[in-house]
Amino acid sequence: MVSRSDLANAIRVLSMDAVQKANSGHPGMPMGMADIAEALWRHHLKHSPANPGWFDRDRFVLSNGHGSMLLYSLLHLSGYDLSIDDLKAFRQWHSKTPGHPEYRYAPGVETTTGPLGQGITNAVGMALAEKVLAAEFNRDGHAIVDHHTWVFLGDGCLMEGISHEACSLAGTWGLGKLIAFYDDNGISIDGDVEGWFTDDTVKRFEAYGWQVIPAIDGHDFAALDTAIAAAKADTARPTLICCRTKIGKGAPNKEGGHDVHGAPLGDAEIAATRAHLNWPHAPFEIPADIASAWNAREAGAASEAAWTERFAAYRAAFPAEAAEFERRMRGELPANWAAHAAAAIEKINAKGETIATRKASQNAIEAFAPALPELLGGSADLASSNLTLWSGSKGVSREQGGNYVYYGVREFGMAAIMNGATLHGGFKPYGATFLMFSEYARNALRMAALMKINPIFVFTHDSIGLGEDGPTHQPVEQTATLRLIPNMDTWRPADTVESAVAWQAAIERQDGPSTLIFSRQNLPFLSRDAEQIAAIRRGGYVLREADKARAVLIATGSEVELALKAQALLAEEGIAVRVVSMPSTNVFDRQDKAYIASVLPAGLPRVAVEAGVSDFWRKYVGLEGGVVGLDHFGESAPAKQLFEAFGFTAANVAQTVKSVL
Amino acid sequence: MVSRSDLANAIRVLSMDAVQKANSGHPGMPMGMADIAEALWRHHLKHSPANPGWFDRDRFVLSNGHGSMLLYSLLHLSGYDLSIDDLKAFRQWHSKTPGHPEYRYAPGVETTTGPLGQGITNAVGMALAEKVLAAEFNRDGHAIVDHHTWVFLGDGCLMEGISHEACSLAGTWGLGKLIAFYDDNGISIDGDVEGWFTDDTVKRFEAYGWQVIPAIDGHDFAALDTAIAAAKADTARPTLICCRTKIGKGAPNKEGGHDVHGAPLGDAEIAATRAHLNWPHAPFEIPADIASAWNAREAGAASEAAWTERFAAYRAAFPAEAAEFERRMRGELPANWAAHAAAAIEKINAKGETIATRKASQNAIEAFAPALPELLGGSADLASSNLTLWSGSKGVSREQGGNYVYYGVREFGMAAIMNGATLHGGFKPYGATFLMFSEYARNALRMAALMKINPIFVFTHDSIGLGEDGPTHQPVEQTATLRLIPNMDTWRPADTVESAVAWQAAIERQDGPSTLIFSRQNLPFLSRDAEQIAAIRRGGYVLREADKARAVLIATGSEVELALKAQALLAEEGIAVRVVSMPSTNVFDRQDKAYIASVLPAGLPRVAVEAGVSDFWRKYVGLEGGVVGLDHFGESAPAKQLFEAFGFTAANVAQTVKSVL
Repeated sequence: MVSRSDLANAIRVLSMDAVQKANSGHPGMPMGMADIAEALWRHHLKHSPANPGWFDRDRFVLSNGHGSMLLYSLLHLSGYDLSIDDLKAFRQWHSKTPGHPEYRYAPGVETTTGPLGQGITNAVGMALAEKVLAAEFNRDGHAIVDHHTWVFLGDGCLMEGISHEACSLAGTWGLGKLIAFYDDNGISIDGDVEGWFTDDTVKRFEAYGWQVIPAIDGHDFAALDTAIAAAKADTARPTLICCRTKIGKGAPNKEGGHDVHGAPLGDAEIAATRAHLNWPHAPFEIPADIASAWNAREAGAASEAAWTERFAAYRAAFPAEAAEFERRMRGELPANWAAHAAAAIEKINAKGETIATRKASQNAIEAFAPALPELLGGSADLASSNLTLWSGSKGVSREQGGNYVYYGVREFGMAAIMNGATLHGGFKPYGATFLMFSEYARNALRMAALMKINPIFVFTHDSIGLGEDGPTHQPVEQTATLRLIPNMDTWRPADTVESAVAWQAAIERQDGPSTLIFSRQNLPFLSRDAEQIAAIRRGGYVLREADKARAVLIATGSEVELALKAQALLAEEGIAVRVVSMPSTNVFDRQDKAYIASVLPAGLPRVAVEAGVSDFWRKYVGLEGGVVGLDHFGESAPAKQLFEAFGFTAANVAQTVKSVL
Repeated sequence: MVSRSDLANAIRVLSMDAVQKANSGHPGMPMGMADIAEALWRHHLKHSPANPGWFDRDRFVLSNGHGSMLLYSLLHLSGYDLSIDDLKAFRQWHSKTPGHPEYRYAPGVETTTGPLGQGITNAVGMALAEKVLAAEFNRDGHAIVDHHTWVFLGDGCLMEGISHEACSLAGTWGLGKLIAFYDDNGISIDGDVEGWFTDDTVKRFEAYGWQVIPAIDGHDFAALDTAIAAAKADTARPTLICCRTKIGKGAPNKEGGHDVHGAPLGDAEIAATRAHLNWPHAPFEIPADIASAWNAREAGAASEAAWTERFAAYRAAFPAEAAEFERRMRGELPANWAAHAAAAIEKINAKGETIATRKASQNAIEAFAPALPELLGGSADLASSNLTLWSGSKGVSREQGGNYVYYGVREFGMAAIMNGATLHGGFKPYGATFLMFSEYARNALRMAALMKINPIFVFTHDSIGLGEDGPTHQPVEQTATLRLIPNMDTWRPADTVESAVAWQAAIERQDGPSTLIFSRQNLPFLSRDAEQIAAIRRGGYVLREADKARAVLIATGSEVELALKAQALLAEEGIAVRVVSMPSTNVFDRQDKAYIASVLPAGLPRVAVEAGVSDFWRKYVGLEGGVVGLDHFGESAPAKQLFEAFGFTAANVAQTVKSVL
């Protein structure tokens, strides 16, 4: 008879052996949380290892992602397509088992974790998505969306600020199907946490409106079972189960100390652990009875089959909803999307409005959203400034679903929740703040790019053009730095049409996130022919040609107007220059060489104009070209005055062009 | 007889009138917190308006910085050098009264605030500095460091994650002289906060170990007085005074609603407010009795004089300590610094070690720190990875002062606390995390640059060279984006000597922060003559000349070794190339044109080598040069394998050089 301890020990041994083989990794957490993992994964987790993409599976998030071997062990033992050879390749080139759990590598990894605090926040996004999707699609007697989100997290996650943002919202929203296990082992990298982490975590989470189950012995299976049952029983509040554990449990000489956190145990301690756990088997050898007790393929298939049956009944009763649900979960756009978008853009172009691009953004949302029920909007307490609400917006709350999230002043939390909702499926989240505060959210934007998921980050008030709020709120380097994130598509449109096209591109993008950057102030409408409108999607295009152009002026956003004025000034002097609008350098860089050369012909000197740091533009203008940029912080004053004082005048742009001829 | 309400109303009216005149700004908070401000500033705040730089003044931080007119009104009324004309110039070009309070603009502004949550965190840093400085310099009967740090904050600050990081630490450290007033007005920009902010804030702060004084009527002077007295009486815990206020109080038709938060009241409501407050005076006119009751010059001078007398007694008893205290508070380096640093660098050069630059950084700290008691080190729970401890490190705790701060896993909090400690004076903070998690702290780094203050941000594990932890931990774009922050000096040294010189430059820098970026892996020692060692301080220099060089190879950090190997390979083929080491592009860009041209001669093709995004390097190599860079995310695998797989080989660098000849 295999005991639960034996089953948990399989995780311990696989983890310590894989870390030892890689000569790199974190054995402490997997060994410490192995018993909790057994309690959850073998007795409560709803999943189907043969089909990791089953819509109604529970989501499991390892927020303390450095303990990746815990998750890999669980996935292997449960029967996912992750072989013992995959475990042996832990942390090796092109393996399915990288150092931290990476989305899209091993099946069953729901999100990439490692940057602390973001896993629990992704999980809040998943649980939010579950709740909102259930409200939208479930019908009486047809609970087709009905699953839990489970999280393992440690001291590090709880110290990070983002855990405050996420867990506060989870409480406010009453995410009753979110259940987190706190690995309270008293150790972080610098040693005993009591020197730097003395929070009363129970009280803290009660303050957020969570059910908190305190002081569970994380190595007592019965206590864990009771706690999990209590967690599931409270459907109105998220639950934190606080588990006292011993880090590295099972390693007789090292357990409980911080040396076991992030380094291999070493051969001697591994041998001692094998003896101590009474585990005589060779590395990566799992006895058949233990393997069989862990394998969840059959149970998972049964669980999935029951849902499939329920879904068939749902489909019979609500065929349209069932089809729409499946489309949403596949992440496909509606069949009428292309036509709808084209018509909307045509209408926006015909209207020819001179408005702020943040308003143009709102108009684009208003035009597109009726065709896209998957849009899940939001703002970090700046709805009326970011202009992210549309006429069909309905706020999500504890009591109801909806399509708009009031995130409060929580930029990082918002972005990582958006990532979680995207990963869950069924939604295309967009969320907004001021461009400056993209910095608060920065690593979550990067995580979206790394995971190749496609939320839409909206940032308004994009330059000194915001005026009086001053340099703390005036982006200077932010647009350039966003463009440098690999796999991020950043757009800074110049008018209503470019704004709508940027939205269209962001909505259609499948393999990465988009950042849409909008102005606070009005920008003039720019007329274009159909070919030019189509060319916006190429990221950069010739907006105003000039016969026998002697130079190319490249501009984005609010500075396109300035480039056009400079073009006119120069024309008066008999100097012909071409004006290129470059709303997305990232997208432009992906075009074929011939197109790029047609927009930026070799040999013509170039001048870039953007109210931001100039260094970025050297990649287009070279050492000999010119940049009218801003390489210092802004000031608090009316916007018009700032643009003039900082050299953003047609005369200065024209002069810069002349200087490079 | 002037009532306290009249005195508070002076703030209300100045604020609403200044916002109206600027046609921009936030009247709601100043009007809502005016009574609290009267209670604190007229009855408790220890300050000397004639000498805003008095060392032992209380520090006051307006964490909800959008309410800047509250602070400007207080400074003007109290007798600081801030005239009524300055208030009339609110939010105008080059005024002392920008939209948000900016350090160095108006006297009495202790820190730049606006980005929410950072003000309270700066204040935690100030209170920490006070505590640690007091422990170091006070002697029995000589409390020369003995002042409070006061904070106003709102819902926004409390929602931000950084408030969790900072306030948790403040509780752990027992910062009894930190007293914060929570402006609990129930309103944020999106409306009533109950939809997105339902925390039990009292319970939350009790969980952090604060004294919490709940449910004070923020318009009841007697209640405020009692609360402040209780706050001061508890010297073992920081105190949060929760004040129920009405936003925009005094505006009869708008108070209590979110319309009053961030827009001028309008002429009609301003007239109504004047009537309602029984304030018949013209805009910017303060009656003499009210002005006189507010003026704190005399009381402040007396307060300062008492301290000056105490300090004279201290000087008499402890002359060396008094002189050192004054040096520290002036932010001057010790007289022997230059000689000490030069000798240390000479020794490091003579040693010629091949070690990781993070270890070289630790050696530099070990060499420099004995001469610099103002160094206040730290790490966000990565002391043993960042290598920021030195043999003289003594951890700060609730019970004791010291020179090293265990920040826990709180990168943003750490950086903003470092800013606060720097602003307080007496310390030169350095603090570390992995380079990747500079992103968590990003906006605090920018705030240091904006304020022109000089903390030292240490970031280790600087590239794919960290290996197996994978892409979540492998910086690719971070070094480039840090270089784009105006007024930030970023250094990425190549060996022990460059590491020591980078530390020296960061320590000596007065007008801005520095970022020091170090490798996880070993880097070879590079021999240099004295002239070359001196040239490191110029940010870029010729490391290995070649006769009749046909190209210039530019590299930083771990890639300098690669450039040298490529130089050797090319030399075998008869191709001479110069190798330039460029540890700080920011510093190099500030050199005179002749020096820059001497390092990077016009006409010679250039190739840059850095394990990071290539776009940045176009500013040096132009369109025709080459870049061996990394424009995608890394992978989890041993470092050596990654460098090779991603093209960081001498052969590839040599090939790239040949391609541009």
